[in-house]
Amino acid sequence: MAEVTGTWIRGGTSKCWVFETEDIEATGLTPDEFLPRIYGSPDHRQLDGVGGATSTTSKAMLLSRSEEPDIDVVYTFAQVGIDELKVDWGSNCGNCSSTAGLYAVEQGWVELAQDMTYVRTYNTNTGQLIVQRIPTPGGALPESPTAMIPGTLYPGYEVGLGFVEPSGKTLGALLPTGRTREDLSVAGTSWPVTLVDAGAPAVILPAEAVGLVKIPHEDWTDAVRARLAELDQVRRAGAVAMGMATTAGEAERAVPKLGIVGPSRTDGADLEVLMLSMGHPHPAMPITGSVAMTMASFTAGTWPAEFADADADPQNLRLRTPAGVIATFADDSGPQLIVGADRTARTLASARLHLPAPVPMTAV
Amino acid sequence: MAEVTGTWIRGGTSKCWVFETEDIEATGLTPDEFLPRIYGSPDHRQLDGVGGATSTTSKAMLLSRSEEPDIDVVYTFAQVGIDELKVDWGSNCGNCSSTAGLYAVEQGWVELAQDMTYVRTYNTNTGQLIVQRIPTPGGALPESPTAMIPGTLYPGYEVGLGFVEPSGKTLGALLPTGRTREDLSVAGTSWPVTLVDAGAPAVILPAEAVGLVKIPHEDWTDAVRARLAELDQVRRAGAVAMGMATTAGEAERAVPKLGIVGPSRTDGADLEVLMLSMGHPHPAMPITGSVAMTMASFTAGTWPAEFADADADPQNLRLRTPAGVIATFADDSGPQLIVGADRTARTLASARLHLPAPVPMTAV
Repeated sequence: MAEVTGTWIRGGTSKCWVFETEDIEATGLTPDEFLPRIYGSPDHRQLDGVGGATSTTSKAMLLSRSEEPDIDVVYTFAQVGIDELKVDWGSNCGNCSSTAGLYAVEQGWVELAQDMTYVRTYNTNTGQLIVQRIPTPGGALPESPTAMIPGTLYPGYEVGLGFVEPSGKTLGALLPTGRTREDLSVAGTSWPVTLVDAGAPAVILPAEAVGLVKIPHEDWTDAVRARLAELDQVRRAGAVAMGMATTAGEAERAVPKLGIVGPSRTDGADLEVLMLSMGHPHPAMPITGSVAMTMASFTAGTWPAEFADADADPQNLRLRTPAGVIATFADDSGPQLIVGADRTARTLASARLHLPAPVPMTAV
Repeated sequence: MAEVTGTWIRGGTSKCWVFETEDIEATGLTPDEFLPRIYGSPDHRQLDGVGGATSTTSKAMLLSRSEEPDIDVVYTFAQVGIDELKVDWGSNCGNCSSTAGLYAVEQGWVELAQDMTYVRTYNTNTGQLIVQRIPTPGGALPESPTAMIPGTLYPGYEVGLGFVEPSGKTLGALLPTGRTREDLSVAGTSWPVTLVDAGAPAVILPAEAVGLVKIPHEDWTDAVRARLAELDQVRRAGAVAMGMATTAGEAERAVPKLGIVGPSRTDGADLEVLMLSMGHPHPAMPITGSVAMTMASFTAGTWPAEFADADADPQNLRLRTPAGVIATFADDSGPQLIVGADRTARTLASARLHLPAPVPMTAV
């Protein structure tokens, strides 16, 4: 029976099998054939394969070393169908992305720096360059990882996913309207907002404008869910103000994002945040949203900057999301500014996987 | 980080990690500590470990080679809690049992015979000796497995789980009342039955007595579910008739088992069967029930023998269960008769698992 090397890595709050592209090629199968077969799909339990039978545990990463001078690793994310014999290549996954950086470090694909090692990764699903930074004190990965994030049981290695010079990538400027704050009029009501383009264009509202006064650790999700239609109108008005659409009706569903921000009244966080993604409250924070919120927080005059603690650390801005506190960074220590959020990653298993024959041959 | 060797094997319709007992001992952890930690429990997704997050995919087998002359492998089955930090050692699992035989063959723990290799396994959960037989034509495991069972996607190696000389182990004789058929009177109604002790004591009813006339591939489960109270009274009357209880009220819940049997009207099966286990229709067939049904089928005069095809093969009796056709065997080619049912097993992965540190140390 054919065997293939696979590495199982918990990245953020996802569980991903990591394969090297050439190892899959060596099987003679395409990734669309290989992944469902090795994962045990279609089967709601993925009993006859290595899949984890939930959307967050039926994910795969295909990696290869890059020959480009500015890229270390090229990777493709795959959402492997569970009940369906189908692989979705349509989007990237921030959680799984972090496995690429850790894998490159653990395999010796990059030279380790004395303090922080930067791995330049290119995601083929989105065409994005993501620089990943991993602490390597003394030029080595510590023997045992120690960084915790919400939703995991054990410490992992800290992996920061950084967008390179993210300001104005879509609209040409960090502040597309040239203003740090403004008011949007929607059906006769005036809404205070900050409009920003970093990671992705975003409309950021102060929580008080939505009538939210946060008590410590309160979750805004339910209160916001009751006002989704109204908030989507604000989001669409922001799209028009930023020149992304000529009328509110023409605004896209995915962008701009909408974020709600308020001062943190608890220890351990600098800001309270809730992001809407595709019309729904996000359970944690999409990576693009954390970039927008971070860049705005360090831009004087914006609503996030108004609320952030004065001594907030650009290397460790702490955003309290419904899932817990997420740390972001704005790192200008290298040749380019990189802005993003920290995940943790931990290798669960290094394995030789047995690839089954394609079709049943006889029956007992 | 500590590493441990683990082998992931699909056994029957379960997915089990197989560990060698001494490898777990080398970690310095007890199995009760080791298993939840490596499986990622407690967590309903088992995101931070190698568990499969369902009851059939959060199972483990602990194996060691035996120094006893009549035993090759000693094994213990563990049901690893998912949401709970708890391991259940209270029962054996027929599906996972089959991984012990395959592992012993693949690791070279037993000498392979020219045709059929017998692996003598001892289960510590139940104190049972189970002889496993695996086809090894020409003295080798074929490179690719070819045997299919219902509920799996890919062929596996055929593993027969055999009970040694199973007749009368509980009550002293295959036919505890000395009769091949008899009538039990319950609340004025007479029920035709066969009472048998093989694998476990069982009360076997002809389907027509329950008003069931099977159309091809029809599932009896729903019809039987509507009559569970009545059927349990028949089962309890059988317990009294076999001397297992002095009154119906004193009969145990787990034994005797109750089975319903009828002639097969379809190709590919010798008998139609449905087994009740702990008061509920079993989705397939418990291993003890298949032993009772098989021994009765080859004992002239019993209800199963009445219905079985005249040319039914003792090495491949085909029982159609709600889950599909299960093959059983009664093998007297060795020094002792072994009777049981076939499973298939397939190694999914050979891995080095990374054992996380016991407690979180710092937070991001």
